[in-house]
Amino acid sequence: MPESKSKLFNDQGELVVPKAVVGRLSLYLREVQHLIRDGKETTNSTELGKLLGVTDAQVRKDLAYFGQFGHPGVGYRCQELVAAIKSIMGTNTIWNVALVGIGNLGRALLRYKGFHEQGFQIVAAFDVDDNVIGTKVEGVDVFHIRDLASMVTAQSIRLVAISVPSHAAQAVVDQVVEVGIEGILNFAPVTISVPSKVRVIGVDLAMELEQLAFTVVNRDSKS
Amino acid sequence: MPESKSKLFNDQGELVVPKAVVGRLSLYLREVQHLIRDGKETTNSTELGKLLGVTDAQVRKDLAYFGQFGHPGVGYRCQELVAAIKSIMGTNTIWNVALVGIGNLGRALLRYKGFHEQGFQIVAAFDVDDNVIGTKVEGVDVFHIRDLASMVTAQSIRLVAISVPSHAAQAVVDQVVEVGIEGILNFAPVTISVPSKVRVIGVDLAMELEQLAFTVVNRDSKS
Repeated sequence: MPESKSKLFNDQGELVVPKAVVGRLSLYLREVQHLIRDGKETTNSTELGKLLGVTDAQVRKDLAYFGQFGHPGVGYRCQELVAAIKSIMGTNTIWNVALVGIGNLGRALLRYKGFHEQGFQIVAAFDVDDNVIGTKVEGVDVFHIRDLASMVTAQSIRLVAISVPSHAAQAVVDQVVEVGIEGILNFAPVTISVPSKVRVIGVDLAMELEQLAFTVVNRDSKS
Repeated sequence: MPESKSKLFNDQGELVVPKAVVGRLSLYLREVQHLIRDGKETTNSTELGKLLGVTDAQVRKDLAYFGQFGHPGVGYRCQELVAAIKSIMGTNTIWNVALVGIGNLGRALLRYKGFHEQGFQIVAAFDVDDNVIGTKVEGVDVFHIRDLASMVTAQSIRLVAISVPSHAAQAVVDQVVEVGIEGILNFAPVTISVPSKVRVIGVDLAMELEQLAFTVVNRDSKS
């Protein structure tokens, strides 16, 4: 347990940071990255709170889980805060990611530029369809799923994105867990079960449409 | 301006609810839907705050933008709160959505079950490729983009999901805006410009991987 992150864990060694706080870390990161792009060198909890729609006290409470980042009379130094959050998020290094499922969504994910920009590199793809195995899709080699174990070792892959049909998701998850994958990004719209040591994030695209519906229904009354 | 939502707008008729508060509305909705599935009839700001990782004061402040939902000595009634949030989000009715761009991501979105479950129905798809125009993909008719205006009127379409290549995104957005579309869900990883009356949400899939990286890096120290 790293001493500098002592507030992340309780005495039983369990992570105590609420999920929503971790969610806001990504948002803080994007906002501070934008501030830097706009030429700003420092920021503070009031500004970040406004950008995220939380109180300045909530900003300080959120960041306090991870350490002391403010400077008296200065606030937060943007570059320093970005480096700190990236270090906390674990995205200050490149992550090698595998993709399982070369259907439409899989191909779309292989083409997606945003992953690489934030430090994620899809280094191998897997399927069970002989028509795609042995080919390259978007520059990434496609292997049979039975080669997962050797590729995971060879390429130091720790995360897997799963874009297989719902009915195949759990079987793929079981294989992925078996070879020691630590985190799964699940695009199949089903709940999957994993051992407690494996982390799963399910992507809910409907939530984005909900947000859009809200902004359309509640547009400025003058427009 | 609806009187019951007076706190949503300032005297100039501008929406004053922070974006993050709207983001949390979707999360409150999902959590209360889960509570109902688990057989719970009531909840309160402490419970919701714990589920979302914010203070109970923040929960009350968030919901207060939209009205008074609590009952003294009871808290929130789950069914009532779900109905209220859906009404606020505008998802208490079905939205007809168009999709532009029948590439891999477009096909994946047409197949995505989650949209329909939350009240969104993709009723028409558009492309410029003669090979797909006139066909059905996942049961949805594909039209030439020049038929956008007539379909939008015929089907009362207000939202559009855009899954075209980045270089084509702005041109498509301009066409979509021209025919009166009110909200755009943009999957192209580029910033697009629209008139102020049109709402845009960009989907950042990298943020999900970031969250996964965090949970892997900061796993319980006992595991």
